[in-house]
Amino acid sequence: MKRYDEVDLLAVSALRALALDEIDTAGSGHPGMALDIAPALYVLYRDYLNSDPRHPLHPGRDRFVLSAGHVSALLYAMLHLAGFEVPLAELKKFRQLGSKCPGHPEWGLTPGVDATSGPLGQGLAQAVGMAVAEKALKARFPGSEDYLSHRVYALCGDGCLQEGISQEAISFAGLNELDNLVFIYDTNGSTLDNPTSASFDEDVRARFESAKWRVFEVGDANDLEELGAAYFAATREDAEHRPSLVIVHSQIGYGSELAGSHKSHGSPLGSEVSARAKKAFCYPYAPFEVPDIVRERLQNSFARRGALLIEQKESAHREYLVKSPEKAHLLDLLLEGKSFLPERSEFPFREKEATRSASGRYLNLLAKKDPGLIGGAADVASSLKTDLKGEGRFSPSDYGGKNLAYGIREFLLASINNGILLSGGLHPFGGTFLVFSDYMKNAIRMSALEGLPNVYLFSHDSIAVGEDGPTHQPIEQLDSLRLIPGLVDWRPADGRELVAAYEAAFERKDGPSAIVLSRQDLPLLQNSDIDLAKSGAYRLKEGTDIELLASGSEVALALEVSRLLEEKGLFAAVISVPSFALLGKMAKKPFRLPRERRIAIEMGSAALYYRYAAHVIALDGFGASGKDKDVIAHFRFDAPSLLERVLDALKA
Amino acid sequence: MKRYDEVDLLAVSALRALALDEIDTAGSGHPGMALDIAPALYVLYRDYLNSDPRHPLHPGRDRFVLSAGHVSALLYAMLHLAGFEVPLAELKKFRQLGSKCPGHPEWGLTPGVDATSGPLGQGLAQAVGMAVAEKALKARFPGSEDYLSHRVYALCGDGCLQEGISQEAISFAGLNELDNLVFIYDTNGSTLDNPTSASFDEDVRARFESAKWRVFEVGDANDLEELGAAYFAATREDAEHRPSLVIVHSQIGYGSELAGSHKSHGSPLGSEVSARAKKAFCYPYAPFEVPDIVRERLQNSFARRGALLIEQKESAHREYLVKSPEKAHLLDLLLEGKSFLPERSEFPFREKEATRSASGRYLNLLAKKDPGLIGGAADVASSLKTDLKGEGRFSPSDYGGKNLAYGIREFLLASINNGILLSGGLHPFGGTFLVFSDYMKNAIRMSALEGLPNVYLFSHDSIAVGEDGPTHQPIEQLDSLRLIPGLVDWRPADGRELVAAYEAAFERKDGPSAIVLSRQDLPLLQNSDIDLAKSGAYRLKEGTDIELLASGSEVALALEVSRLLEEKGLFAAVISVPSFALLGKMAKKPFRLPRERRIAIEMGSAALYYRYAAHVIALDGFGASGKDKDVIAHFRFDAPSLLERVLDALKA
Repeated sequence: MKRYDEVDLLAVSALRALALDEIDTAGSGHPGMALDIAPALYVLYRDYLNSDPRHPLHPGRDRFVLSAGHVSALLYAMLHLAGFEVPLAELKKFRQLGSKCPGHPEWGLTPGVDATSGPLGQGLAQAVGMAVAEKALKARFPGSEDYLSHRVYALCGDGCLQEGISQEAISFAGLNELDNLVFIYDTNGSTLDNPTSASFDEDVRARFESAKWRVFEVGDANDLEELGAAYFAATREDAEHRPSLVIVHSQIGYGSELAGSHKSHGSPLGSEVSARAKKAFCYPYAPFEVPDIVRERLQNSFARRGALLIEQKESAHREYLVKSPEKAHLLDLLLEGKSFLPERSEFPFREKEATRSASGRYLNLLAKKDPGLIGGAADVASSLKTDLKGEGRFSPSDYGGKNLAYGIREFLLASINNGILLSGGLHPFGGTFLVFSDYMKNAIRMSALEGLPNVYLFSHDSIAVGEDGPTHQPIEQLDSLRLIPGLVDWRPADGRELVAAYEAAFERKDGPSAIVLSRQDLPLLQNSDIDLAKSGAYRLKEGTDIELLASGSEVALALEVSRLLEEKGLFAAVISVPSFALLGKMAKKPFRLPRERRIAIEMGSAALYYRYAAHVIALDGFGASGKDKDVIAHFRFDAPSLLERVLDALKA
Repeated sequence: MKRYDEVDLLAVSALRALALDEIDTAGSGHPGMALDIAPALYVLYRDYLNSDPRHPLHPGRDRFVLSAGHVSALLYAMLHLAGFEVPLAELKKFRQLGSKCPGHPEWGLTPGVDATSGPLGQGLAQAVGMAVAEKALKARFPGSEDYLSHRVYALCGDGCLQEGISQEAISFAGLNELDNLVFIYDTNGSTLDNPTSASFDEDVRARFESAKWRVFEVGDANDLEELGAAYFAATREDAEHRPSLVIVHSQIGYGSELAGSHKSHGSPLGSEVSARAKKAFCYPYAPFEVPDIVRERLQNSFARRGALLIEQKESAHREYLVKSPEKAHLLDLLLEGKSFLPERSEFPFREKEATRSASGRYLNLLAKKDPGLIGGAADVASSLKTDLKGEGRFSPSDYGGKNLAYGIREFLLASINNGILLSGGLHPFGGTFLVFSDYMKNAIRMSALEGLPNVYLFSHDSIAVGEDGPTHQPIEQLDSLRLIPGLVDWRPADGRELVAAYEAAFERKDGPSAIVLSRQDLPLLQNSDIDLAKSGAYRLKEGTDIELLASGSEVALALEVSRLLEEKGLFAAVISVPSFALLGKMAKKPFRLPRERRIAIEMGSAALYYRYAAHVIALDGFGASGKDKDVIAHFRFDAPSLLERVLDALKA
């Protein structure tokens, strides 16, 4: 017996037609893949994706990530027909300023959009993060399964699978047996520039199987029965707990005159070609017109199923509250976004300690307080000091473990943590050496764009890295992070400023923070102050002649230089700048002297300091391999050299 | 008959012992993998790698890339024993300031080191670039095969294969049938943090085979015969022209007390543990002592074979000069590093043109002049305008093609081009949308660190991208590129400045350039000047009251604003800043008014301008999806809004 009838075929045509209408009205967009993959999206929503359009943020809903974000027109059409609050009026404003239907899907803007996507590959990686979150949260709250259980679906094209991050995602998901995850891969034979074969001819099935996925194929993208059967198989229980891939063989630009050509990929077909395409797939309606029967079909399948499901989940939630009131209450708090911080008195300071070590101690304290904490490092946990002792490692045998072994996969780390935050309820952190923040650069930007309070930890924060040499010594990375809109940087000078950074980062709700840590020991400063540090910048030492600005390890250096200057009769104030971003926002900045009397000292590019200081003592080239003390002296960042450089700067 | 005898075993022990001595003397380094993979490196050099240590830069030599750069101690030991100019005195200064043996291998510093490595995965990708270069150069110079033919070997561990860029490299190499490429993968069961199984359990053989590689395995890393047989097979002709992978199963820290433990990975064993390890592998000599018989063995194998080979190659070169003098001369010029630029008169300017389009025209002109040009885009060739018309596409059926289809693999693109430059003789270029420079960030840094004149092209350089929205609109990227030490940024304001950028970028020998291009049309400016633009910044319009600084599309805007200001009686000079990096180096900067009277205008973060201007009109958040004109007006970057903002800035 057939499951799908002519109404379903009409609905698929409606999706295609709406997508074409959106794109032609906007005068830009990507029709090719929208045309070819419409049936796969339709069958997914009609029969598999469990979500109630009236509760688009319910924690127990299935997630859907359009990793091929350029196919947004199709997604908006689907959300509209499925009953989300995406009215026709918004579809008509596709890609226009202020529309709910922007060029690429944006988290927080459009009901039913579960992630920002467009930068290829990251949708898949974020979906992996969501799948991690589902496993982790359920494991931490036994009894909540009926409330929280769900699947994560992500749709991608060739682009996502060519990006390296996809392999990081695939490998991690297979290893961790994320059987709550389904990727749908549209293979339509075309990329923007060329037929796909010019840049991609992998055996995708074998590639996924080599990473312990199970793979199902749909030979004809337009065969709804075949699609349904593949999804059925992909969501069936699997003794080996593998994630699933559904490969859908399609033809780009299906139904239009440009079918099969990469020319249908990235430009509107135009209303005439679109009109002929609609005729070809038997859709006789006017632009943006959809027959009621189509909406009814989705109302009676997707929306009805979703409503029932959310009802069940809510009742499971109520049961959980009765059975395990304490745990259930804690879970509610987490899902509401509550932070759990230690008391300041619980964290003892040490007279001499690398901020990475203080960070490790703080994290371990935090792990005892925060039921949502999860994270780790890109295989440098022992250097970054992210091991949460006694907290277990997230793995198929212990999804409740708070340590995450991301592997040597920086980009994935950032993206998984973004996905965890999109999913809700958990507080991820993670990082690597500062210099390798480069590897995850666009995912950090994505945290900011999505407004996610992702907490990045970056250690080995200057040439003081020493022996590992210039490939491992950051120069431009700190300034480069400071440039990301919405990111708050922290480079604590000692244990107290570290507490400030952690409190601010974990209290923050609307964007990411990067905490930048020293490899080497730093002294606990006499006048450092947690609350003042949290403001962004503050006066650590008074002085009437000049003001020295510094952050992190250079603050103690600046204090030393100020003592040497005093011997020369020059009184230097020292201003600690734990957060450059917050300094920028301070209504009253902690300066008393004119810009010409201010000197910034930072063992990096430090070029952004020119905003506040006429003189910047910094590095303008790469570092060198050698003992940290030798390297620092070579680049004239030891106190005696700095004294000379400060005096030179004042003469200039 | 056995090929290897007890002298070879002694040589392997010498390698291990030297590596331990280096690391213990330095007090830092990575002994674990050095111990386990020493035999594989030894057999490679003894019997397969073709290179003459007296000519470590010969174009026809085999290349070797230690992608697992942290195993540098072993490489230096190997180079020393093989006869390269890496004396014991340098090994003794391992990881010390000024040594030829830095913490990670550095191109240009140590004879026999063919690439800088350490940032994981990029060694493999650079090796792919070298393999591309070998194929491309031979195809362009038929008859030069006996002179230029060689293989490229790269050695990696788990780290490189976990990094996403490795998949980009593997996929590209298989597709392009780079049968001159051999990867050696040391699987030693351990990463820094954990047993490998905690983060990696792929079927690596199947993964490579899915990308059309052939795979050979060595079950016992200490079996020299087995290693030799695997290399023999991997370098044998293959009807399907596949690249080869040799998987070597080893035990981390082999021979030491920490064998099998990830604790041997990243910290010195210490002289006592090392001494016992040396005893265990029967090496009775003092630290840094090597018996002559070991050096002789390599002298009689590796060095003798290399000398003979280079002799043959030189004779092939002489024959080529006789048979095809013109082509051979051209090849020599390329290998010497000559640039080939069009005459300025050959490039007609257009009154209104996007700089990406002018760039496309210039590139096509350059392709006719420069026999070494090769490049393209990360699947946005049609947007970035990088198609070289009529020049063919690099592929197994046409290795002479000048267009490279990198696929949707930005990181690989940059790294391949680095590898091509390391190989020598060719002039690569390539890029993507400016916002996705993030995806290749560390490889751009690597160009600068290696001193390679990689030419990056980045288009769609501001919020004027329009409809694609904030994921596709760069904000911080331009400043972020400007921060990379040694990179020269170019953001031309019109066709003339574009010529300046291209000339400077392709004339440069010692570092990378990034040419940043507009999506939208820009007018040809009345007073723009190629030579002045090449200096970095120059006065385009005089004015006595204020100075407006701008680059790229904002220069025309600044000119328009200056006209509006004139109506208000305020005379603004306009200074074009095509290269911020070069402006920084100008001894005499083109300013006449004090900093307080200077206003920078840039549709990006533009925060670096505070160095020169008290006022910066910029963007401090992300963009938005909409028509470019609407977006620009929304962010108040249209001329009337800018007029107001300039007047406001002056009041502040």
